[in-house]
Amino acid sequence: MASENNPYRSDCPINYSLEMLGDSWSLLIIRDIIFAGKRTYGEFLTSDEGIARNILANRLQQLTCKGILEKKPHHTDNRKDLYVVTDKGLDLIPILLELSAWGAKHEPSTSHGQSWVAETNLDREQLVQRIRQSVLEGRSVFDSVGD
Amino acid sequence: MASENNPYRSDCPINYSLEMLGDSWSLLIIRDIIFAGKRTYGEFLTSDEGIARNILANRLQQLTCKGILEKKPHHTDNRKDLYVVTDKGLDLIPILLELSAWGAKHEPSTSHGQSWVAETNLDREQLVQRIRQSVLEGRSVFDSVGD
Repeated sequence: MASENNPYRSDCPINYSLEMLGDSWSLLIIRDIIFAGKRTYGEFLTSDEGIARNILANRLQQLTCKGILEKKPHHTDNRKDLYVVTDKGLDLIPILLELSAWGAKHEPSTSHGQSWVAETNLDREQLVQRIRQSVLEGRSVFDSVGD
Repeated sequence: MASENNPYRSDCPINYSLEMLGDSWSLLIIRDIIFAGKRTYGEFLTSDEGIARNILANRLQQLTCKGILEKKPHHTDNRKDLYVVTDKGLDLIPILLELSAWGAKHEPSTSHGQSWVAETNLDREQLVQRIRQSVLEGRSVFDSVGD
């Protein structure tokens, strides 16, 4: 049972994470930022899953409120906002990697999306650091595969 | 875009996993089986998060259809069903561990739920194997912490 000081459904860290991440759309937006280098509302709209405009706007607001994303002004176009991941958002990289590994194993038609991991020849911790660094430098991790 | 042979929203393995796992209730049920050794509808109902009866029944059915859980007759009470995780479900252990680690780091009030991991003194792969073995043997992993 949640304690008096805890606004979440329970004191379980897994439950907390699930409450923070909400439904699958939130993690797909974070995937787009971390792996595809997307940063704007318009870029998120183009992803294959076809997120609806109202859902996208809502999830961007929620993720910003929860400290997982940060909204910044666009450098050159003041009609747009840029969404970047915070440190809290970067810490989601291992969760995304495990979701990707599980999906590729159990639905082989998606496995090409995971094949680049093997190509890096990095151990798990090195892989997480490589991805984190690519996000901080504003480039796609795929640009550095094989370095 | 999803290919003709792919019934999912896209070819991305992360998206596949999120579609399979559905909302947070599914992962909480799997958590209860893997970490708490729960196996019946009545046991899942007692968890702190307070899952509603209709949601629980729906998620048990979905997880069974998706090959993540398997429904078996109860050994001694034919009014009850037992739900056990399949190999596909056991492969979710690393995802649950990462969700737990992220939650404990970013919401310290939940960190006691993660403290047993440090006590095991196991590396990550050993920890996954220890948990998997405990589930297969029908006991809680907490029984073996410190072995």
